[in-house]
Amino acid sequence: MRVLGVDCGSEYTGYGVVEQHEDQRLLCCVCGAIKLRTRDAMALKLQRIFADLTAIIAEHRPEVVAIEDVFYAANVKSALKLGQVRGVAMLAASSCGLEVAEYSPLSIKSAVVGYGRAEKVQVQQMVMRLLKLSEAPEPSDASDALAIAICHIHTAATLKRYQAVTP
Amino acid sequence: MRVLGVDCGSEYTGYGVVEQHEDQRLLCCVCGAIKLRTRDAMALKLQRIFADLTAIIAEHRPEVVAIEDVFYAANVKSALKLGQVRGVAMLAASSCGLEVAEYSPLSIKSAVVGYGRAEKVQVQQMVMRLLKLSEAPEPSDASDALAIAICHIHTAATLKRYQAVTP
Repeated sequence: MRVLGVDCGSEYTGYGVVEQHEDQRLLCCVCGAIKLRTRDAMALKLQRIFADLTAIIAEHRPEVVAIEDVFYAANVKSALKLGQVRGVAMLAASSCGLEVAEYSPLSIKSAVVGYGRAEKVQVQQMVMRLLKLSEAPEPSDASDALAIAICHIHTAATLKRYQAVTP
Repeated sequence: MRVLGVDCGSEYTGYGVVEQHEDQRLLCCVCGAIKLRTRDAMALKLQRIFADLTAIIAEHRPEVVAIEDVFYAANVKSALKLGQVRGVAMLAASSCGLEVAEYSPLSIKSAVVGYGRAEKVQVQQMVMRLLKLSEAPEPSDASDALAIAICHIHTAATLKRYQAVTP
């Protein structure tokens, strides 16, 4: 299973592709962040995110895209901005025929650290450990995106086990 | 000048193409609303909006896309939803090489009715009058989209006049 995690943001949008091997090992195929130029018009920024995510999907061929479900924003203006980026990320996935899975911050932390109220740095350390990375992915948005991908892999595995024992 | 106005919404997204002839007359080329199916996944809804707006742009060839700038939403959740639709609408415009112009609700009402705090029905009646329509465009999202397009045409005309007299 190969998953693209996307951490949407109006300045940096993190991405990370995680693959799970048959022996359950997790591997980081690629990670990074799309940095948007502050002076660019919003429409241009969205075009950039769409083009970059589409290129990442074409190159790394994930089977599914996982993104964070957001319930909190400082205000309506920033929620709208974040929503715009999120909409374009979802469109990039569905345009490539991929399903979009959404996870709450609580689910992501629970799946990665085992504790829903874990600190950002704990999530980052666990991402490094699970993916056997010698250094923390930079910027932190890249690490967050990998955490979202790992969350999907763990959740899918749990679901599969559950379906196997449910008549 | 030919303008596509888009009124973004998480249920209905209104659209309307308005053309200004050389004698200043305004003509409604097309208007309507993209209705989203409640049961569809958000990614699918966004794909639908993108495809429909791209098709409208290809058929009616506007020179610019005008959308409402939003500052208010009932809560963060609805602002995020609206933002997603807005992001995809802006992407549809920029993917077709068109610029996106944003107008506040106040500017739109001022440009169409001449009064920033005009009621919804006043805007609708003025849209009918300016475009010489015998019936009110339905749903109201279509009428709102036409108002946004008219606002851009009026604003562009004012700007042109201003530039003509400014040394």
